[in-house]
Amino acid sequence: MASDANASEERVLAAVEERRAIVNDAIDDYLPLAEPERLWEASRYLMLAGGKRLRPTVSLLAAEALLDVEPLSEPYTDFPTLSGDRIDILAAGMSIEVIQAFTLIHDDIMDDDALRRGVPAVHVEYGTDTAILAGDTLYSKAFEILTHTGSHAENGLRATRRLATTCTHICEGQALDVDFEGRTEVPPEEYLEMVESKTAVLFGAAAAIPPILLDADDEVVDALHQYAVEAGSAFQIQDDVLDLTVPSEKLGKQRGSDLVEDKETLITLHARQQGVDVDGLVDADDPETLTDAEVEAAVATLNEAGSIDYARTTARDLVAKSKSRLEVLPDNEARGLLGDIADYLITRGY
Amino acid sequence: MASDANASEERVLAAVEERRAIVNDAIDDYLPLAEPERLWEASRYLMLAGGKRLRPTVSLLAAEALLDVEPLSEPYTDFPTLSGDRIDILAAGMSIEVIQAFTLIHDDIMDDDALRRGVPAVHVEYGTDTAILAGDTLYSKAFEILTHTGSHAENGLRATRRLATTCTHICEGQALDVDFEGRTEVPPEEYLEMVESKTAVLFGAAAAIPPILLDADDEVVDALHQYAVEAGSAFQIQDDVLDLTVPSEKLGKQRGSDLVEDKETLITLHARQQGVDVDGLVDADDPETLTDAEVEAAVATLNEAGSIDYARTTARDLVAKSKSRLEVLPDNEARGLLGDIADYLITRGY
Repeated sequence: MASDANASEERVLAAVEERRAIVNDAIDDYLPLAEPERLWEASRYLMLAGGKRLRPTVSLLAAEALLDVEPLSEPYTDFPTLSGDRIDILAAGMSIEVIQAFTLIHDDIMDDDALRRGVPAVHVEYGTDTAILAGDTLYSKAFEILTHTGSHAENGLRATRRLATTCTHICEGQALDVDFEGRTEVPPEEYLEMVESKTAVLFGAAAAIPPILLDADDEVVDALHQYAVEAGSAFQIQDDVLDLTVPSEKLGKQRGSDLVEDKETLITLHARQQGVDVDGLVDADDPETLTDAEVEAAVATLNEAGSIDYARTTARDLVAKSKSRLEVLPDNEARGLLGDIADYLITRGY
Repeated sequence: MASDANASEERVLAAVEERRAIVNDAIDDYLPLAEPERLWEASRYLMLAGGKRLRPTVSLLAAEALLDVEPLSEPYTDFPTLSGDRIDILAAGMSIEVIQAFTLIHDDIMDDDALRRGVPAVHVEYGTDTAILAGDTLYSKAFEILTHTGSHAENGLRATRRLATTCTHICEGQALDVDFEGRTEVPPEEYLEMVESKTAVLFGAAAAIPPILLDADDEVVDALHQYAVEAGSAFQIQDDVLDLTVPSEKLGKQRGSDLVEDKETLITLHARQQGVDVDGLVDADDPETLTDAEVEAAVATLNEAGSIDYARTTARDLVAKSKSRLEVLPDNEARGLLGDIADYLITRGY
């Protein structure tokens, strides 16, 4: 079982790594450095700072699974569709990654997070005004990129609409998240709804837009959307677990910073239901003054209340549901990798 | 001549007023109040606070001129195209107005402008975080609206792409504007390029997107685009003139606030070239402490240097060029109104 899990994780990491390299190599093509240079530097900064590229990996694997082709056997920029022509499916994955970068830049301003991907956040590096503008630039650029896949216009228009509704949904999720900060008695279902809007729908679009562009039936589009929304929700819950359980160096930001920032997560909401004094878990009111000892003590309390286990179980159930959605696809290596990715999202260490 | 000008202005005001009413009545349809309520309230707040609706008016008149129909004789939500079917052209105008609202909300954060359309700016009323998010919400909503015109998919996709490239261009223009704040020796041509990017391209999209959706030739699309870019540049130059020459009550913000904020305009750049000590024109460093006497004295100095006249002449030349572009359209009442609007943009009092 453990060695199976290890083998699965190794396959995922290799698949992600291969596609990450392709995405990274293509950034200059889809997001070239233009004038005014400072704006474009700020816009590209987070894209170039790294990132796992999980969402474009999902996009590219979804395309390969759907077309039933051997992984990496067809060039992504000239990829076959179900109706027999060829399109640039890499553009779809790139547009999702660009939207992801935009949301991170604006979220970091709102949450005043100083670090992202191990480097200063864009508003710290370039100032808030330029960071707002860099996010806005990436926002339109993502739509621009998505209109250039070369797909049938009908599919291109549907894909663009899907990206737009997804972005509206993300904004609504972020607003819910901000509202939650003032509330301590949020039912877990409501929290999961927020997570779905804020994070999971972009995974959903990453998986649904390729089948739209590749001329798949609505049934397939919907199934892939659900696969990724459920896996994406599990991903976000796991992120909240990792914030408490992974050393700061590995996280790329201070461990336990969610607690300092009074961010409600599935873990804290469960703990409150169990009577834990969540607000008293840490004294620090700035991530920089938070000590590891304080975090350790908080984690021990949350473990005792069963709250971290509760989050893990919820994530695990979501992943099981998520994987069952893939049955709509032909049984092939890419589909297997999509299943492995769903597993990986909750077994990953950081 | 004066009575001709008055008659033209009256026609424009009536045409804008009629279309403004239609746009205002449709806000609830295209931008309904949804959950989370506070986000949607903040997103709709500026749209509901008023606005001249000049851009959608240009969109709707361009459609009527192109189809050679009597103004207001065809319903905008079920409007004929050149290829014989019918589409929702109001959606196109609305998407432009929604983009306009998004840019104003984010610009007001960056420029820290407290008043807009006579009411507190969104970030003053709802806080900066919600204002960033409200702008982001309107951004995607505009794309969503534009994908729902019912046009041929080919045209819908082209229109969406045009909106995306326009938004990127606007961000670049805003970045140039911010860069200019630190520079005092900007050649007027470079300034005009910034104005074109920051303001005029959205007028350009307002005029170009309807012919794209209505199946017009590229020649017509390009001519209407140029008409509106040139008129829009003149509009922005006139805005800078009005900031100095119109009483605060009429402006909806403090008269002369551009001078306090060290905003370079065609006027200040010309004045610098004439040796005027622009930085010494007013002492106040906050629009609220600026006195009318200070503004009067500054305006007298700028008038003596010929700088306000220079801006007016530049705007007038742009409008003449702009109007000549309309010859590509059939000669009809709507085309006449588009010409009148170009005139009005530089004769308007506020």
